[in-house]
Amino acid sequence: MIIQLKEGVTEQEKAAIISKLKSAKYKATEVKTQCCNYLIGIGKSEFDIRTVGHMPGIKDLHRVSDDFKLVSRKWKVNPSVVDLGDGLQIKQGNFAIMAGPCSIEDETQIQKTIDHLKANDIRIMRGGVFKPRSSPYSFRGLGIDGLKLFYRMCRENGIKIITEVMQVSQIAPMLDYVDIFQVGARNTQNFNLLDELGKVDKPVMIKRGISGTIDELLYSAEYVFSGGNEKLILCERGIRTYETASRNTLDLNAVPILKDKTHLPVIVDPSHGIGIREYIEPMALAAVMAGADGIIYETHEKPEEAASDGAQTLNFAESERLVKKLRAAYALREQLG
Amino acid sequence: MIIQLKEGVTEQEKAAIISKLKSAKYKATEVKTQCCNYLIGIGKSEFDIRTVGHMPGIKDLHRVSDDFKLVSRKWKVNPSVVDLGDGLQIKQGNFAIMAGPCSIEDETQIQKTIDHLKANDIRIMRGGVFKPRSSPYSFRGLGIDGLKLFYRMCRENGIKIITEVMQVSQIAPMLDYVDIFQVGARNTQNFNLLDELGKVDKPVMIKRGISGTIDELLYSAEYVFSGGNEKLILCERGIRTYETASRNTLDLNAVPILKDKTHLPVIVDPSHGIGIREYIEPMALAAVMAGADGIIYETHEKPEEAASDGAQTLNFAESERLVKKLRAAYALREQLG
Amino acid sequence: MIIQLKEGVTEQEKAAIISKLKSAKYKATEVKTQCCNYLIGIGKSEFDIRTVGHMPGIKDLHRVSDDFKLVSRKWKVNPSVVDLGDGLQIKQGNFAIMAGPCSIEDETQIQKTIDHLKANDIRIMRGGVFKPRSSPYSFRGLGIDGLKLFYRMCRENGIKIITEVMQVSQIAPMLDYVDIFQVGARNTQNFNLLDELGKVDKPVMIKRGISGTIDELLYSAEYVFSGGNEKLILCERGIRTYETASRNTLDLNAVPILKDKTHLPVIVDPSHGIGIREYIEPMALAAVMAGADGIIYETHEKPEEAASDGAQTLNFAESERLVKKLRAAYALREQLG
Amino acid sequence: MIIQLKEGVTEQEKAAIISKLKSAKYKATEVKTQCCNYLIGIGKSEFDIRTVGHMPGIKDLHRVSDDFKLVSRKWKVNPSVVDLGDGLQIKQGNFAIMAGPCSIEDETQIQKTIDHLKANDIRIMRGGVFKPRSSPYSFRGLGIDGLKLFYRMCRENGIKIITEVMQVSQIAPMLDYVDIFQVGARNTQNFNLLDELGKVDKPVMIKRGISGTIDELLYSAEYVFSGGNEKLILCERGIRTYETASRNTLDLNAVPILKDKTHLPVIVDPSHGIGIREYIEPMALAAVMAGADGIIYETHEKPEEAASDGAQTLNFAESERLVKKLRAAYALREQLG
Repeated sequence: MIIQLKEGVTEQEKAAIISKLKSAKYKATEVKTQCCNYLIGIGKSEFDIRTVGHMPGIKDLHRVSDDFKLVSRKWKVNPSVVDLGDGLQIKQGNFAIMAGPCSIEDETQIQKTIDHLKANDIRIMRGGVFKPRSSPYSFRGLGIDGLKLFYRMCRENGIKIITEVMQVSQIAPMLDYVDIFQVGARNTQNFNLLDELGKVDKPVMIKRGISGTIDELLYSAEYVFSGGNEKLILCERGIRTYETASRNTLDLNAVPILKDKTHLPVIVDPSHGIGIREYIEPMALAAVMAGADGIIYETHEKPEEAASDGAQTLNFAESERLVKKLRAAYALREQLG
Repeated sequence: MIIQLKEGVTEQEKAAIISKLKSAKYKATEVKTQCCNYLIGIGKSEFDIRTVGHMPGIKDLHRVSDDFKLVSRKWKVNPSVVDLGDGLQIKQGNFAIMAGPCSIEDETQIQKTIDHLKANDIRIMRGGVFKPRSSPYSFRGLGIDGLKLFYRMCRENGIKIITEVMQVSQIAPMLDYVDIFQVGARNTQNFNLLDELGKVDKPVMIKRGISGTIDELLYSAEYVFSGGNEKLILCERGIRTYETASRNTLDLNAVPILKDKTHLPVIVDPSHGIGIREYIEPMALAAVMAGADGIIYETHEKPEEAASDGAQTLNFAESERLVKKLRAAYALREQLG
Repeated sequence: MIIQLKEGVTEQEKAAIISKLKSAKYKATEVKTQCCNYLIGIGKSEFDIRTVGHMPGIKDLHRVSDDFKLVSRKWKVNPSVVDLGDGLQIKQGNFAIMAGPCSIEDETQIQKTIDHLKANDIRIMRGGVFKPRSSPYSFRGLGIDGLKLFYRMCRENGIKIITEVMQVSQIAPMLDYVDIFQVGARNTQNFNLLDELGKVDKPVMIKRGISGTIDELLYSAEYVFSGGNEKLILCERGIRTYETASRNTLDLNAVPILKDKTHLPVIVDPSHGIGIREYIEPMALAAVMAGADGIIYETHEKPEEAASDGAQTLNFAESERLVKKLRAAYALREQLG
Repeated sequence: MIIQLKEGVTEQEKAAIISKLKSAKYKATEVKTQCCNYLIGIGKSEFDIRTVGHMPGIKDLHRVSDDFKLVSRKWKVNPSVVDLGDGLQIKQGNFAIMAGPCSIEDETQIQKTIDHLKANDIRIMRGGVFKPRSSPYSFRGLGIDGLKLFYRMCRENGIKIITEVMQVSQIAPMLDYVDIFQVGARNTQNFNLLDELGKVDKPVMIKRGISGTIDELLYSAEYVFSGGNEKLILCERGIRTYETASRNTLDLNAVPILKDKTHLPVIVDPSHGIGIREYIEPMALAAVMAGADGIIYETHEKPEEAASDGAQTLNFAESERLVKKLRAAYALREQLG
């Protein structure tokens, strides 16, 4: 059960509600986010919510049968809006496009990418400075200095940035140089990281785990939300299956299912999803029709020379063509209703 | 290597080519289909195809590095056309729509479905009369008499039918009452069935196995083609993964990959693919943008009363809405190029 | 619900029971096997079995909550015994060893294998004459003539044979030359084949499907049993997962689970299961401790020259060592209880 | 390539070797562990190792074709020994048994478990104080105070402890109260955590990822080893597959494969592996025969009252029976050779 408390609720009122819940063997967890104050009640017995509903301090009360609560659409029917400032919002009813290289390499690369994005009216740039790599001997990214350069250049050009955070100790130094924190597929169940991102007042995009279920993704989002951060975005990026013809199996089924289960916006990453350059475009377009609220993909001036992920990275000409088609597909989707 | 023989090639010419292949330790398999006569040469050593290319009786010769040969696009770049007669073709550049109930139930059900199809300009009806069921105690379909009724009624209304064949002994009795034989996901590697369907002059649609790889689907098609039947259609229908939020995981990645690997048309079955009624529409639309040459889905006047698969079956209103959107999406895809 | 009928039950008695079931909206399916006569009652409502239990003609009656019935251990607690004649039985409390080549090649190969088996007191030889192959251009086995030779030579040496049947039309010609019919992993859900094997009075070993669930394997066994054939053996042979370090993932978890769910004997095939020669032995020994009732594996005088599956085939020295260890492990398991 | 440097190698000698590697376009990474000093050379070109082998400062040099290097058995053929002190070693040739509850709950529980372990001559106790949980509302463990209590009580009784570390910031406070750090399945690719554990002089056991490949597990171990910590143990704990009859699919195939690929000891966790209490014993015994160097399992005085994981936890009577059988099975394995 989710109890949304009134603004200005007193400690006494809160205590009374918690005590009422306890008497019904419900455990109450208090959640304070950027905008609201909630009590999450969890218990097994039947419970007549009317016995609580009238208590002072309560603005709203919902029974939520899902095991995840605050991210469930059973509670919040209206889609969430994640505001990036400067008139930029990630939400249902917009179509967000995020593009950029796998890894940030140097000033020239950043500038060329920014130019490409601006020419195509793309307002969010992706790019990794901390890179999770299977092998310890691979390139692990430019680190915090690279991030500062990346951020400064984007800022000067009116571009927002999304970049991966890999561990708790990176959050504080990154905080001022990030518009969206990305939690990568290997960290979807890094619960300490999620806990800490719950304390931050910056949007967080959580990628589905490498073999994560849809419900596990929602639970991970619940960690951040119940930690205090409502600014959440989910991302489908392909799952691991027996099929070897593609790098991963982009699971577009997750899109309508997530849109049904949660009020959070859902982004699709076709680059990691299928992992083969020639097939990014059809999968990205398919994602639009499946109901995605946006796309994140990899692009680089010269994919064959990229520091990482070249085999799934579009060059700028391909990227430009994709963006045009994405917008046309999205326009059609909106029109069809 | 695929050697396409000239019309009127003599036995002597053929023998000479085969002998030449043998001398290079290549095994030659002769294939006669409805339209052509081929020699498939398989061997491991390097082979200078120019030493054979000039021999009399040869129309064309291609090296094919894939392990499947006749279904490979490395040999035949132009997409195949499967002609159903009466101006109806399944091919790239068309968009085939096949709809109907999971199981054929009775005359009323058939008539109502036909009326629905005609009202929406759908020219191919699906419907099972032999049903593969996990449990021996479940409804197994109306059998051959049901098929005759189904076929007669469709014929009178200018509708083509596609229906599943489960075993070799059903082929002969079904032959005159079927427009497209469907090989179901449990029979994708029923090689005897594929062998026999190779001898038939009727289109065959092969569904991907329940956990079949893309390459295995192509090998299964190679069985039918090398058995003599070029009239082949492939169908993606969802694979088995760890995810339980959907019945199967519709693998749309298979669409651009198959379109790249083979010249055969590719159909998508979103009904079995995701297996949940509310999500059929977005997945079907996504399939269009992924590059599918058509869609097959389940519809029934009253899904909740259907003899099987009700939970993934659209009612006629949903079906009508879907068809309109499919055509709009396909029109956009063609326009975007 | 399973109703075992008395020997000599009259048609009238049976009709009365069926009518009673119908009045409770239970569908009754009559099953006659080699030894018994059953009525399987399937329905959704609650049903007081005491209202039927006293009726004449009933020997025994069990409620079975599983969806599979006759193969469930909820009905038949005592393990089944599959008798091969000549004092040879496959059952819990024995440990069956079946060995031989993937494919039967020629007389010399058969004789050498027989000599090896006899020297190691192995009484069942495996060997395929009909081979399911992914590619139509691969070797497909010696066929029925090979089977006759194989059977005659084994018979003369007191060896029983197990070999794969791929389609319905092969059953009749194979019948007199087979001791155990094997249903391969690609045919686990070939329901027509299972139906027909239900009518045969020969043991049938069903392999788990390539990505078949444990329950699907039990359903497939239910097909054969309810078709009339109780002489059933199950076989775990590896499933398809994302892991590529082994050919398949031998799922030994299936052994204790199957032993718990069904009264049928459970055999393990480590050769296909892990698919790499060096690892067959540890997996076979592990299978013993997991509770398997026997092992089937591939052996060949010269694996590197075998017509198929050489990479997962033991040579005779390895086979001899394995058999000794298997027996020691089994002795320990029996002793530990 | 792995170059083991001599004790007392000079900076000058090292520089000369690195420069030689660079001239062949090999990147050199220096690794200092508790016992040795290595240079790892990574490059793509062919390289004649004799041109380096004679250089001063080099003790030993091996070409390693695997992508992981220091954990590969291609370099170090002899199995590694992880010494826990007090005569306790985890290694091939011993058989380690680690048992205890999922979560540490209180003093009584710890004491009862210790008594049980001592009565059965088990010298390593497992028990979580930091618990990764899918839902943020579940019990997350007693934390560092619980650990101190746990460690003190074990120490007084001559028991070593293994417990999970979830994040970098926990390492320092845990360091003095842990005998083996466990990296859980959700953190197998938490590379920052692995990096930091590389700097610690305590044994680390890494569990295979929830859907991790065998190679990924080895790469993760390479992180810790190349970070400076050779005291490594690997753990198979079940993978995610489509099968729902077991919680996970314990992949015993991984045992012989890992034993072949790496010199590190391999432990099996049947509790998480199959996840169903009744089947823990057969899977644990199977793991012995598959070649495991030890077993870790969950036991609790009253599993039904355990704070977590009760459904896969043995009671003490079951645990006692298991340990006896494990030792008998291991004795047989050693005897069979």
